[in-house]
Amino acid sequence: MTYDSESKTPQRVINRRAAVMGLAAVATSAASEIKAETVRTPPTAEDERLMREAIALAAKADFPFGAVITRDGEILARGENMGKTTHDPTAHGEMVAIRRFLTEHGPEALKGTTLYTSGEPCVMCMGAIVWCKIGRVVYAASVPQIEKYLGQIEISCTEIAQKTPFEKIEITGGVLAEEALKLFG
Amino acid sequence: MTYDSESKTPQRVINRRAAVMGLAAVATSAASEIKAETVRTPPTAEDERLMREAIALAAKADFPFGAVITRDGEILARGENMGKTTHDPTAHGEMVAIRRFLTEHGPEALKGTTLYTSGEPCVMCMGAIVWCKIGRVVYAASVPQIEKYLGQIEISCTEIAQKTPFEKIEITGGVLAEEALKLFG
Repeated sequence: MTYDSESKTPQRVINRRAAVMGLAAVATSAASEIKAETVRTPPTAEDERLMREAIALAAKADFPFGAVITRDGEILARGENMGKTTHDPTAHGEMVAIRRFLTEHGPEALKGTTLYTSGEPCVMCMGAIVWCKIGRVVYAASVPQIEKYLGQIEISCTEIAQKTPFEKIEITGGVLAEEALKLFG
Repeated sequence: MTYDSESKTPQRVINRRAAVMGLAAVATSAASEIKAETVRTPPTAEDERLMREAIALAAKADFPFGAVITRDGEILARGENMGKTTHDPTAHGEMVAIRRFLTEHGPEALKGTTLYTSGEPCVMCMGAIVWCKIGRVVYAASVPQIEKYLGQIEISCTEIAQKTPFEKIEITGGVLAEEALKLFG
């Protein structure tokens, strides 16, 4: 559960409520062991495939950030940072993907999806992810890693998930972080 | 500098960098006393007038949140929560006001403005405020006050300002909080 944002090793974390539920389950059923194991599970090959799509978007964005929103491995929306193109400082990759998803599929379909992003979501994007009830976030480079190149708000998306008592959000960090960071070079 | 989000007394807070600068000034010049005093200054009549505009928008919104963006006391954009109307869970009052401002006036004009909002900005809206370089935030009801009625992400906008090392944002909380909270009744 510890958020080691500088770690090179991908790790999976879940929010506090889920963790408490997991601990309670440890005492009562064998299923809890699977749950506990899941917390530390590294990303799957599926995660890497979809993260490559997000990084490809980042490579052609105004600032090097890209995101895709998926369900069952299928990409339903794509977004790249368009801060300069659209004269909109809020047009981060995740926000652009969310806006396109909402326009094309509506808010109900967005619930429980997985969002892949080449850079850990900032507070703005993570807030949007929470309000849209996106179920899982997978990111490449962490906020501290990105901060070496661009000013960042120094709050992790995991902390935001942990301080959201009404929603369960799973987070996997560090998937292809090195590849995403190369775009800042 | 302490964030007393439950306080009934309006108070003005600034981010950590500004506070450090203020403390340095205390030791070196008389102007610092004005700065220090400003930190504790209650809102002006101007603040109340503009907050009433935000609350009026909240009264007719999908969820009771409204915001206005101003410069020198003039309202340049208005926003009300349109989460249901536009099928967009990110259409908070502040985001709607920011989007309208960007469309009408562009991002350069948004820098250094003051945003009045009937409810303390959530992490999403405060992130947008930071990225748009809005200079001052004045809010009515606090996150803990709103949380008695609606699920909230439990992070104050002041904490976000404090964890933004590259931007100075002034915050005044609690202006007409009771009036804003009546809309939840």
